[in-house]
Amino acid sequence: MTEQTKKQVDLIIEARWVLPIVPRSKMLERTAVVVSNGVIQDLLGIEACKLKYSATKTIHLMDHVLIPGLINLHTHMGMTLMRGLADDKALMPWLEKHIWPAEQELVSERFVRDNALFACAELLSGGVTCFNDMYFYPQATADAAVQAGIRAQLGLVVLEFPTAYAADADDYIQKGLEARDSWRNSPLLTSSMAPHAPYTVADATYEKVITYAEQLGMGVHTHLHETADEISRSIDQYSVRPIRRMANLGLLGPNVTAAHCVQMNDEDVNLIKSYGVHVAHCPSSNLKLGSGVAPVSNMLNETINVGIGTDSAASNNRLDMFTEMRLAALLAKGSTGDASVVPAFQALEMATINGAKALGLDDKIGSLEIGKLADLAAIRIADVETLPCFDPISHLVYVCGREHVSHVWVSGDLRYEKPVNQSGVFANIEPLELKEIAFLWQSKLNQFKA
Amino acid sequence: MTEQTKKQVDLIIEARWVLPIVPRSKMLERTAVVVSNGVIQDLLGIEACKLKYSATKTIHLMDHVLIPGLINLHTHMGMTLMRGLADDKALMPWLEKHIWPAEQELVSERFVRDNALFACAELLSGGVTCFNDMYFYPQATADAAVQAGIRAQLGLVVLEFPTAYAADADDYIQKGLEARDSWRNSPLLTSSMAPHAPYTVADATYEKVITYAEQLGMGVHTHLHETADEISRSIDQYSVRPIRRMANLGLLGPNVTAAHCVQMNDEDVNLIKSYGVHVAHCPSSNLKLGSGVAPVSNMLNETINVGIGTDSAASNNRLDMFTEMRLAALLAKGSTGDASVVPAFQALEMATINGAKALGLDDKIGSLEIGKLADLAAIRIADVETLPCFDPISHLVYVCGREHVSHVWVSGDLRYEKPVNQSGVFANIEPLELKEIAFLWQSKLNQFKA
Repeated sequence: MTEQTKKQVDLIIEARWVLPIVPRSKMLERTAVVVSNGVIQDLLGIEACKLKYSATKTIHLMDHVLIPGLINLHTHMGMTLMRGLADDKALMPWLEKHIWPAEQELVSERFVRDNALFACAELLSGGVTCFNDMYFYPQATADAAVQAGIRAQLGLVVLEFPTAYAADADDYIQKGLEARDSWRNSPLLTSSMAPHAPYTVADATYEKVITYAEQLGMGVHTHLHETADEISRSIDQYSVRPIRRMANLGLLGPNVTAAHCVQMNDEDVNLIKSYGVHVAHCPSSNLKLGSGVAPVSNMLNETINVGIGTDSAASNNRLDMFTEMRLAALLAKGSTGDASVVPAFQALEMATINGAKALGLDDKIGSLEIGKLADLAAIRIADVETLPCFDPISHLVYVCGREHVSHVWVSGDLRYEKPVNQSGVFANIEPLELKEIAFLWQSKLNQFKA
Repeated sequence: MTEQTKKQVDLIIEARWVLPIVPRSKMLERTAVVVSNGVIQDLLGIEACKLKYSATKTIHLMDHVLIPGLINLHTHMGMTLMRGLADDKALMPWLEKHIWPAEQELVSERFVRDNALFACAELLSGGVTCFNDMYFYPQATADAAVQAGIRAQLGLVVLEFPTAYAADADDYIQKGLEARDSWRNSPLLTSSMAPHAPYTVADATYEKVITYAEQLGMGVHTHLHETADEISRSIDQYSVRPIRRMANLGLLGPNVTAAHCVQMNDEDVNLIKSYGVHVAHCPSSNLKLGSGVAPVSNMLNETINVGIGTDSAASNNRLDMFTEMRLAALLAKGSTGDASVVPAFQALEMATINGAKALGLDDKIGSLEIGKLADLAAIRIADVETLPCFDPISHLVYVCGREHVSHVWVSGDLRYEKPVNQSGVFANIEPLELKEIAFLWQSKLNQFKA
């Protein structure tokens, strides 16, 4: 075939290894991913690709494994600069003495935008191409995501008590719907209703949330069964555990993503399973706040769809999906006594296609398949701490860190690149702006530190 | 004071923060560490230092925190190139189908030296200045440590069954004592008797181990209570749990470091405490092999000295003390339901002074005090994922990774340096040699992979 008859495309990425995630456990060697108009057009051997396609840009990644961009299924991007503000505290003193006073004083549209932009940089540099957020001023997080060029599902947060952002539940809902209107035309952004948690949202508000989610075709993102205290409060107030209360209210369904699900008895697991609810597992945050260990292996065995989230930088303190994947796999083994549960590939599924399913975006992202959006991350395996490599799937989970991420594309656009032995570069975020954001808000947050 | 009257020293390191570990929780700001002849001569404010000392070399680390070099309290350096050879397997199939056949075929003096040199590079680049090892051919690990310039306590491994290294327990002991003679004059190396584990060492051999340890003034390094299976085997064979058997044999004492101590009842904890035995906690390895979670918070409350180890790259698969410190702190919180246990400073103590105490080296290393050896690591806190920083102690454990280590000194000699946006450089290890080692042995190990 001559140059003239080759098909012209935007981008060819040739990689030593390509892990498409779907089909399961399949690893492609010396494979090219062909991209045009932000969409994966083909996956084929490098030599076959040279004969068939001609690209505006070709990238050679011969020490690398190419994977679908990671999906962070539970974030509060607007809290990122509270990283390490107060650690080693029990949940309630942490919230009451540090986090809530800081939020009361400082949270504003500007604060959330700056925090979210900072978080977008951290996520992109760690191979994340999509996050599922819940916080005040979601339009500010939307602005940051659009600037950074990262995909997001933004929760329209709803709770009963007043904050700088909104006065009461109806006000939260109204402000959320207005925010949603502001980003409706962005191809990177989708929306969910985000009732905060069973202990901060009343039954009447849940009923409104259900109505809007149904009428507007939105998913629901909520915290659920995070702590033992949440369960006992619910039994005191409603005579049932929170999951049963949610079921009774009609909230549960396959459009719901429940973050945490740590404190789960058999009935809880059965309800989550029978309603097709998705779970966002946040292992670091659950350990750090003393909440416990979610029964992930059990939920996966029950065919519940479990993704992975970092939670916020205030409770984690790394927005690092590599740390979370590794911890998810290790904790499942350690807590069951079975080293074979949650093998490396399953941890990668949780961080990619399972997250996409939870967001209702699995027709577009979460795997490298022809016709899906070109959300991709490349990880370099060539340093002393990553050699030798017998199995890149195992390495991605047990060996590699976010520092080995070399390239990140969203819809085929290169959003982050770290050349060997150089610092990482973002397409639309200036390092100086990030430094200025950190120093500005650190000076204001200092008064709330432990 | 004029230049002439200033005291001439070898090295001054000026740092934004210095965390000496002793005294507890004290953080020094804008402090200089003064080093001559490999020993810390002074710690004082930067301005005061300028007036008092003149150095052959001065290093300015104004984005950094300086800490004692980390002490990895449980390693098998000679297994490093088996990183990821077979994952997600239960302990016995993993050993019987992959690790033991590979060792049977390949372990030799050259294999161990190459593996250990590779591991020395990984450890140094992650801020580790001392490791506590147990493996065949310890003189080969000694050679690698001396080349790399890293401190080590090398276990003279003893077990009953024959390997390529030795024929029977007496042969292991004999070979170990000969190896020890070979490194007796190295200032970086000390020795321990290393009976492998209760299920691989007979009573008569333990008695010999005790005799040699006493006569030669050596510590003892052993695996203990790693798995439930180990306990039940011991009860079947000896009618007592392993720790009780060790106590009955007279092995236990303040010169013993027991790796793992996962499966611990109250009596086990009391015995460890009453004999002053030190514990090497290996959280990643214990989770990954499905062994469980050691009751670290309980042991620390009982004033048992607990350090941290990575175990080998075959079961971890990162020789990364930052990951282990974070996991030790998080697991203690998650397993007890108390977010305040094992706070960040305590995790850092475990990885420094507690390790030094276990090795009987706490008069020389483990903290930054005048008169101690200048074993130091600098960690840079200036990147998007590490900003802002309200408390460097919290950041070291919850935020930083080994990739933020910028300088590592052993006895005042710079052994590793990673300039900003450049690759790390070792004083005495060539990158090309590391690549050759990885490729040579990977080709031979491939046949044993999962």
